[in-house]
Amino acid sequence: MKSLSETDFTIIGLGLMGASLAAALRPHCHRIWGVDQDPGALQWCHAQGWIDCGHQRFEDAIPHSDVIVLATPVRTILTFLEAIPSYLMPGTLVMDLGSTKTSICEKMEHLPLGVEAIGGHPLCGREVSGARNADASLFQDRLFVLVPTEKTSPRALDLTIQLVKSIGARPVILDAATHDRLVATSSHLPYLVACTLVATASRMSDPENFLWHLVASGFRDTSRLAGSDVQMMLDILQTNRSNILRSMKIFAQTVNELIQILESEDEAQLKAWLENAREERRRHIQ
Amino acid sequence: MKSLSETDFTIIGLGLMGASLAAALRPHCHRIWGVDQDPGALQWCHAQGWIDCGHQRFEDAIPHSDVIVLATPVRTILTFLEAIPSYLMPGTLVMDLGSTKTSICEKMEHLPLGVEAIGGHPLCGREVSGARNADASLFQDRLFVLVPTEKTSPRALDLTIQLVKSIGARPVILDAATHDRLVATSSHLPYLVACTLVATASRMSDPENFLWHLVASGFRDTSRLAGSDVQMMLDILQTNRSNILRSMKIFAQTVNELIQILESEDEAQLKAWLENAREERRRHIQ
Repeated sequence: MKSLSETDFTIIGLGLMGASLAAALRPHCHRIWGVDQDPGALQWCHAQGWIDCGHQRFEDAIPHSDVIVLATPVRTILTFLEAIPSYLMPGTLVMDLGSTKTSICEKMEHLPLGVEAIGGHPLCGREVSGARNADASLFQDRLFVLVPTEKTSPRALDLTIQLVKSIGARPVILDAATHDRLVATSSHLPYLVACTLVATASRMSDPENFLWHLVASGFRDTSRLAGSDVQMMLDILQTNRSNILRSMKIFAQTVNELIQILESEDEAQLKAWLENAREERRRHIQ
Repeated sequence: MKSLSETDFTIIGLGLMGASLAAALRPHCHRIWGVDQDPGALQWCHAQGWIDCGHQRFEDAIPHSDVIVLATPVRTILTFLEAIPSYLMPGTLVMDLGSTKTSICEKMEHLPLGVEAIGGHPLCGREVSGARNADASLFQDRLFVLVPTEKTSPRALDLTIQLVKSIGARPVILDAATHDRLVATSSHLPYLVACTLVATASRMSDPENFLWHLVASGFRDTSRLAGSDVQMMLDILQTNRSNILRSMKIFAQTVNELIQILESEDEAQLKAWLENAREERRRHIQ
């Protein structure tokens, strides 16, 4: 397997993640082929010097590459994993940037003999999307989860770790089930909570929408994730449903517990509960 | 009543709000007396040039002032409204910066004849506290709710509007009940939601706390308010309990509604629900 600086990449999907990866990776690899249905995204990435060549059809890019990076929403990645096998040379490495890993890594196991595959998930979501919001610094100091499969050779793992470090991210290796279970709470639950807060405010709002005028930075930050791309989030919710439902139900129980404490008028208990939440956050989040 | 530039103020409580008000107001008024139990806060504000003189006992400052601003947590404001009347000259204006208004404005109505009073609430909370985090720009472009009472003359209202504009904030006049009903959802609910998210993550976390390592900007922002000062928030929760309980119960209903949609596997309905939340936020929050 070639070193990173000799490696040719095809990145399929030049949205925020794919285009940012192209931007961050371009100085460290040999060549990047970009694939996107949208000619505007291809032109933008080419004009920025992030890709060497752009194609609307993946068939035109894949044969030239050592590594294929699937950087689309999760269910589109699943579709590509069924569409691309006949175009893959033996020795090609397939990786992805999808936000859930179990369904993707399962499908990777069925790629042709000789093709390598590894799951990836950079933890750097934003609520903006598209190539024009891409940024080479998106991955800086962020965790980048790698999920080795049965089709991951030690050399393929080495190359992806090099890739992750070259874009300024910190590699961490997890199995798919653990990843999906943990991000259901750390990432997908906050999105649903933000949406629920917005939906509640809509219900509580006055006819003149004065409630919305009173919204300050607290509501704004707590609800920020509700602005996320819905199609991308739907793919995540549908491919990590059971973990997310479990987190949501624990969240609902915790809401009800807090309501009971508020109703009990037991101020000492309320204080202890709130101080515990504050302390937990302070301990784990800088 | 004097113009703002001729007016002497006493600000009781030099925490984040009181000290920031002193910093922002100082160039526009005649003199500011600061009152705080903590000599360190007094020294800091004096060294910054935000107050002309500092006292630990309010009795030493009040007689010199035209306007008394109560800038402590809500229940301490209520205590001061009982403690200060015998020190107030006729014509003195009492105002406050408390986050809930009904209990404070009710108590203001019982101030001695000839004393004026108006409720105030600048919408610029932060999760940090204390004089050393104070900042003259804290109020810039923020709403500053004014709640006139039966003891608010037109000239007192004029003076407070001048004050609000002088510190860069935008005055808005509301009655206490409407204010408390709306901020229960726009401000207090997000705090409780953030705490509940943190409590849920604690319950879902693995023994190695790996969940917390995976936390990215989304969880961080959604949970930011959980770092708020607990004593200040307790005062708010205890003086706006019925409104907050109502909002929390609607929130809990909305969580359960979303769980049902997730369980139904009706993707079209889920998509419509999430798109509605995204669109509501986009429409109301820039």
